[in-house]
Amino acid sequence: MKSLFNPRSVAIVGVSSNPEKIGATILLNLMKNGFSGKLYPVNPKYDEVYGLKCYKSVKEIPNVDVIVIAVPAESVVDVIKEGKDKAKYFIIISGGFGEAGNEKVTKELKEVGKNLKIVGPNCLGVYSSKSLFDTIFFPYSRLERPKKGKIAIISQSGGVGSVLLSLAARYNIGINSFVSYGNAYFLNENDFLEFFAKDKETKAIILYIEGTSDGKRFVKTLKKVAKKKPVIVLKAGKEGKAKEAAKTHTGNVAGDYLSYKAVFKKAGAIEVENFEEMFDVSKAFLNTELPRGKNIGIISNGGGLAVMASDEAVKLGLNIPDLSQKTKEFLRKEMPSYVTVANPLDVVADATVERYEKALKAFMEDENIDMVCVNILIQQPTINNSIIQKIASNIKKPTVVCVPGGNIEQEVRKAMLTSGIACYAYPENAIKSLHKLYEYAKLIGVAKR
Amino acid sequence: MKSLFNPRSVAIVGVSSNPEKIGATILLNLMKNGFSGKLYPVNPKYDEVYGLKCYKSVKEIPNVDVIVIAVPAESVVDVIKEGKDKAKYFIIISGGFGEAGNEKVTKELKEVGKNLKIVGPNCLGVYSSKSLFDTIFFPYSRLERPKKGKIAIISQSGGVGSVLLSLAARYNIGINSFVSYGNAYFLNENDFLEFFAKDKETKAIILYIEGTSDGKRFVKTLKKVAKKKPVIVLKAGKEGKAKEAAKTHTGNVAGDYLSYKAVFKKAGAIEVENFEEMFDVSKAFLNTELPRGKNIGIISNGGGLAVMASDEAVKLGLNIPDLSQKTKEFLRKEMPSYVTVANPLDVVADATVERYEKALKAFMEDENIDMVCVNILIQQPTINNSIIQKIASNIKKPTVVCVPGGNIEQEVRKAMLTSGIACYAYPENAIKSLHKLYEYAKLIGVAKR
Repeated sequence: MKSLFNPRSVAIVGVSSNPEKIGATILLNLMKNGFSGKLYPVNPKYDEVYGLKCYKSVKEIPNVDVIVIAVPAESVVDVIKEGKDKAKYFIIISGGFGEAGNEKVTKELKEVGKNLKIVGPNCLGVYSSKSLFDTIFFPYSRLERPKKGKIAIISQSGGVGSVLLSLAARYNIGINSFVSYGNAYFLNENDFLEFFAKDKETKAIILYIEGTSDGKRFVKTLKKVAKKKPVIVLKAGKEGKAKEAAKTHTGNVAGDYLSYKAVFKKAGAIEVENFEEMFDVSKAFLNTELPRGKNIGIISNGGGLAVMASDEAVKLGLNIPDLSQKTKEFLRKEMPSYVTVANPLDVVADATVERYEKALKAFMEDENIDMVCVNILIQQPTINNSIIQKIASNIKKPTVVCVPGGNIEQEVRKAMLTSGIACYAYPENAIKSLHKLYEYAKLIGVAKR
Repeated sequence: MKSLFNPRSVAIVGVSSNPEKIGATILLNLMKNGFSGKLYPVNPKYDEVYGLKCYKSVKEIPNVDVIVIAVPAESVVDVIKEGKDKAKYFIIISGGFGEAGNEKVTKELKEVGKNLKIVGPNCLGVYSSKSLFDTIFFPYSRLERPKKGKIAIISQSGGVGSVLLSLAARYNIGINSFVSYGNAYFLNENDFLEFFAKDKETKAIILYIEGTSDGKRFVKTLKKVAKKKPVIVLKAGKEGKAKEAAKTHTGNVAGDYLSYKAVFKKAGAIEVENFEEMFDVSKAFLNTELPRGKNIGIISNGGGLAVMASDEAVKLGLNIPDLSQKTKEFLRKEMPSYVTVANPLDVVADATVERYEKALKAFMEDENIDMVCVNILIQQPTINNSIIQKIASNIKKPTVVCVPGGNIEQEVRKAMLTSGIACYAYPENAIKSLHKLYEYAKLIGVAKR
């Protein structure tokens, strides 16, 4: 699939002279934002568009890696017929097939495309942060693209997919590749899962799915892929009316949610409940190691935060062990007398960066502790940004950091993430993410207790 | 308590010449950020601090509305003794009492202060967005203050309280008054609840509590107050180690969580699980009316979002009814043929602002629907910011709006909120908030079905 995400040449069928139309937006995105492959716009009406030669039909273009199709549903079949020997991959952006009840044109498309490698129809197609190949028909001014990174996103829904990209941009999370595959008449989630499992530039996979058309293959694929790389999955269309809505959305039956849930669990996929958890968990998988057990150590300079983190840990079945004798002795010596030496450890409101460093070192060496959650009220005048490097250089166990608060704090969270620290806005989210790491570690046999 | 939140004169005991110390930070915040009351710094060491006359002891100052105390724990009792007839209210910022195991000085303080109106000790004190009276010892450069608004925040924890303020600032949520009351040896959550229940400028109350020292009064007060105004409560220190942590935090026993939960439910307080939900729910209570039943209508221009919103609604027990015959006929006439007329209503990717307006109007008039969730992928080129005013002017039922995505979308969410629309980043959060409105409406008898 390298040709799909990193094509050297691309034809776009259905490029209007109106720059707000879908085909034109795709072409202009590619021209303006750094894609370096060759571009072949196709539209019988023009000889030239946006300064490029325009081709009357796909029959006229040379062979290319990808043909992107953005013409009305009733013309898609003809384009495929004419171009079927011209490209390695096809992306059909156009909707108006099974999801809209148009059975005739759907049947024809399935027939003509059956031996071809086609993404869609009814999708956004692909985005690669490396090649900047990008068939998402939203201009950059309306949809921010994320920075380069190690996550691959597979989204059945185009709308949800676009939201995921702009959220990743906002939260400074790097994306490698993205695909929105829509109705999945040809290539489907399984093909993409298999590709990203092998892809060396992908460290974790995000999957948004409403329903699969090939349940058996999905179970098998997921099982295989989830063992190689974390697959973070959000299943929508769970019950009743939501299932019906999913059907009119991409034409796939959402299926029995409990069966999906069981499949995810058995396969070792990491199920999340919503967008926020999806990225929270991704951050943990990208930035920290897997824990070897369920014993968590909690450090905080605000009692309330320690309490909230502890609540969540207890709720999820993590264990908050006593500190080892050695740690206790060390901390009693190193902490001021008014610090109660315990786990959770409240290093108290006047904690300095140095005090945090000592506490962190002690927790890293304590054999009772498998993973650590560090909470920091950076509002405290005794804390400054040097704490970021101090934490980064002392992490030796799975560790998450929580820096709660608004705009000022968000800058610190970003800086933490840039330093490779999984940093969160809310203590529950930090703990939830560690818990997902633990569950996965348990499943693949890394966690022993 | 008007004198506490809107004092005309304030003494600050323990003002150092080092501007980073607690007392000095409080004085400088008041001097620099618009507080217009008289200020009396107290410190035996100086004749003048920061250009103000400095008093040797509280004995020397004239009568004031509030004395703020920021001296070491062992000196607090003496300050109270000397100043007990000098002020209507006292705020003891200093920690080092019961929470640190110092029983002797705690006992003395309780004795000398027993007939006085004292906030604390071990707290941040108060903040008023109206008077700009502010005893929070973080400079504005480290802790952003929120804009003026209709919410009162009562937080047992200072750290959590400061986080709540900076979150409100980030999410553009207006705050009226704030109090962090710490160990609560004198004034406690009940006194503040009673005050804000009567306060005309407060429309909803946020309460963060770990444990109460007077359970009976708490139950009675909450019951009374929750009927007058929504009380949104977050209880931390739920189980095991988290409960222990709460005790070393403000010295209060966190108590049996299930009892608290039962009390909240019985009293009609709205319990939330975390910071995020706290503000989500507040937004709904401030910006929309209470629903008269549990029937929800869902509109979306992205199928995936409709599916996710529906999932959450079903999960929480809301009902997604069929549209009335009249609505169906209207929509079949007004929507393009490829829009499936149903609830949830997917107005499809190419929906314009006008199409949204028609759908919204139809849902507002449909008697099967009690409340509405509008989801908008504003990335779509057919949508523009005029949708904000169109929605604002057509809302006639409890309505929440979800605009999912990153930075570009956050600006739209802010603008929605400024226009009085309860707007959310995630469909689940929007639905959860509506559900809390419904629960409250049911409890106070507004919702009949």
